[in-house]
Amino acid sequence: MTDLTITDVRLTPILVADPPLLNTQGLHQPYTPRLIIEVVTADGITGVGETYGDAKYLELARPFAERLAGRQVSDLNGLFTIADSVSVDASRVDHQVDVGGLRGIQSADKLRLSVVSGFEVACLDALGKALGLPVHALLGGKLRDSVEYSAYLFYKNAEHPPGVPGERDDWGAALAPAGVVAQARLFHERYGFESFKLKGGCFPPDEEIAAVRALAEAFPGKPLRLDPNGAWSVETSLRVAAELKDVLEYLEDPALGTPAMAEVAARAGVPLATNMCVTTFAEIPEAFTTGAVQVVLSDHHYWGGLRNTQQLAAICRTFGVGVSMHSNTHLGISLAAMTHVAATVPNLHHACDSHYPWQSEDVLTERLTFDAGHVTVSDAPGLGVTLDPDKVARLHRRWLDPAYAHLRDRDDGAAMRVLDPAWVTPAVPRW
Amino acid sequence: MTDLTITDVRLTPILVADPPLLNTQGLHQPYTPRLIIEVVTADGITGVGETYGDAKYLELARPFAERLAGRQVSDLNGLFTIADSVSVDASRVDHQVDVGGLRGIQSADKLRLSVVSGFEVACLDALGKALGLPVHALLGGKLRDSVEYSAYLFYKNAEHPPGVPGERDDWGAALAPAGVVAQARLFHERYGFESFKLKGGCFPPDEEIAAVRALAEAFPGKPLRLDPNGAWSVETSLRVAAELKDVLEYLEDPALGTPAMAEVAARAGVPLATNMCVTTFAEIPEAFTTGAVQVVLSDHHYWGGLRNTQQLAAICRTFGVGVSMHSNTHLGISLAAMTHVAATVPNLHHACDSHYPWQSEDVLTERLTFDAGHVTVSDAPGLGVTLDPDKVARLHRRWLDPAYAHLRDRDDGAAMRVLDPAWVTPAVPRW
Repeated sequence: MTDLTITDVRLTPILVADPPLLNTQGLHQPYTPRLIIEVVTADGITGVGETYGDAKYLELARPFAERLAGRQVSDLNGLFTIADSVSVDASRVDHQVDVGGLRGIQSADKLRLSVVSGFEVACLDALGKALGLPVHALLGGKLRDSVEYSAYLFYKNAEHPPGVPGERDDWGAALAPAGVVAQARLFHERYGFESFKLKGGCFPPDEEIAAVRALAEAFPGKPLRLDPNGAWSVETSLRVAAELKDVLEYLEDPALGTPAMAEVAARAGVPLATNMCVTTFAEIPEAFTTGAVQVVLSDHHYWGGLRNTQQLAAICRTFGVGVSMHSNTHLGISLAAMTHVAATVPNLHHACDSHYPWQSEDVLTERLTFDAGHVTVSDAPGLGVTLDPDKVARLHRRWLDPAYAHLRDRDDGAAMRVLDPAWVTPAVPRW
Repeated sequence: MTDLTITDVRLTPILVADPPLLNTQGLHQPYTPRLIIEVVTADGITGVGETYGDAKYLELARPFAERLAGRQVSDLNGLFTIADSVSVDASRVDHQVDVGGLRGIQSADKLRLSVVSGFEVACLDALGKALGLPVHALLGGKLRDSVEYSAYLFYKNAEHPPGVPGERDDWGAALAPAGVVAQARLFHERYGFESFKLKGGCFPPDEEIAAVRALAEAFPGKPLRLDPNGAWSVETSLRVAAELKDVLEYLEDPALGTPAMAEVAARAGVPLATNMCVTTFAEIPEAFTTGAVQVVLSDHHYWGGLRNTQQLAAICRTFGVGVSMHSNTHLGISLAAMTHVAATVPNLHHACDSHYPWQSEDVLTERLTFDAGHVTVSDAPGLGVTLDPDKVARLHRRWLDPAYAHLRDRDDGAAMRVLDPAWVTPAVPRW
């Protein structure tokens, strides 16, 4: 019998290249922090996970890792008990919306769950390898052989601000409808995506309406989504919904907060999705009983892992609310994890979001691929991915490099101010 | 690597001895039908499960078993896909309340889930044995080393009706407060139970109030529960609640149906528990949004297995509703299954119900035991129980015996009519 005792835990913060993508808060930094977690068992099996890498997550991950050693890698429920024992500095959660401002409330529990998720995935990977089972089998078995993802379109600059060190990309600029459509065509050509999401909230609503209209003309009948990250008032949200409801699969977080979303939902005539007003279990009752959201965009990173994602899906199913999947900048470990859990969710009726195509760098020996917009569900033991230690070391050296120390906490507003010193993170509603 | 393919499935209906216990519908039959399920893998590993054994369950279990062969024992999500493909005869679900009348609505989905649960437990047992892991580890790991159960007190006759073949028991009669207290003392002495539930709805409410008062005097400060199975009107429910709220942990299903429960809950001053108005995921939204119940009594048999029980617990946690565990007549396989899942539920803050002490017969080589009211969570592979083929064969022969054919469907009203030919299943509310 294999020994499932955890004997070592390795935490490696890295900085990974990110293109100059725009959102309502500002601009993606040239490098984004991520944390790579490795859990090693007594038999020398290593499981890998990834999560957010900003300082506030590292602060929790370190004591968490210390408490993990000596436990069984199968003890997944116990991860939450450990999490409860890790104290969160109040200064990290003294504001309602997190620094990024794009993922809803910030609470001590949510911070802890964002750390748990990386460890849970690493434990599942190790457990699967130890037992010879894919992660989906540890989650009750796959219900589909591949998972569909959508093209994640962004308004984007051609390159990072002058003088800022960063990687070049070949996507070009997209600052108006024609550029957005060109980007969508490239996504379709390279990855075969058949549904399209535009990150909005960057330009006045009429410009974004025009971009979605242009997408609808270029891809007739394909599912489209627009996500301004809560940048609009109720009135603006309703106006955009009225203009676009014939072409939108759903409208994502048009307005900020559950009461505003409920007002919009009551009259929008198009389903509302969210990864901002329902990001914790505590927010579910109000949102579901007021009809504020019709689709919850799950994200195993901040919901606390793959098993919590299954629980969230069960709650949504019970209340007749749809499920889809949110994404932040992430690497192949998380794409594999997302694919495993998505394969087990019966009520997943929308293509999932993923930033992965935007990440030119990864820490795997082999990148995951999209075929006709789908990722194949791996049947190999664990997640089915292999960490490349050289790639991890290189990205970790970047994290250690003092020249990049200011990027260890993601701050889209600061990144925008390099380009435009007058930039102030917009008050909400912006329009 | 072990081969997890299912190569054989054995279904064995049995009749198991049951004492002459009373409830609002009538009387327990001298023998109750149960179905023993064995799932065998290519490596010769056998997993066991049990569920209801009435004809309507056997009708579904047989085609279900045929579709299981060739699948992986780890494919637990797929069990629900199989279930959806098994058709349910409309005559089995054309009434709102099931034949027993004690477990809420009867629907095709609920019937299917009641069958799935037995197979799911058998698959988990086999998977655990194949992997060398206890079932609780397959459910994310235990959060406690033992699970507390409550004494399940019944009004009861000393023996089965004259002329009816049945086993004798040594519990004696309990038809008034003194007998109920004596039974509780025996439960405490034999098993160490520290909380007590009385199955009510059998006698006029004042008599049952007196019984609970007598229990409160005999066991001061111990958690008490009273369950009339929906026999009371809203007014009667409120009167009983007013009389007993100082000693009740919760009042279980005083009135029938969610609207009536909501009316009672609003003014009762004591938490209401249910295993009648919330017995399916579909019933949750109305009950939770109207505040009709404060504690859901989960039952893996009809909720669709151990993993669905975890999902139910997650929903309850999210909505601030408590969780405890319901029980029908069951054997040691199910007690082991209940204990494994209960050990993994973080928000289990009440002792679970179990009929097990009433069952003098079992199909295991060794009975499970209660120590100070607790069952130890097994760390052996699978459920940690061993089927005794001779015992199974004996109880199956009883099921095959034409002399007992009329007991193959449980009917508490029919059992009562043997004693009292004038007995008519009471209309609700009875009081």
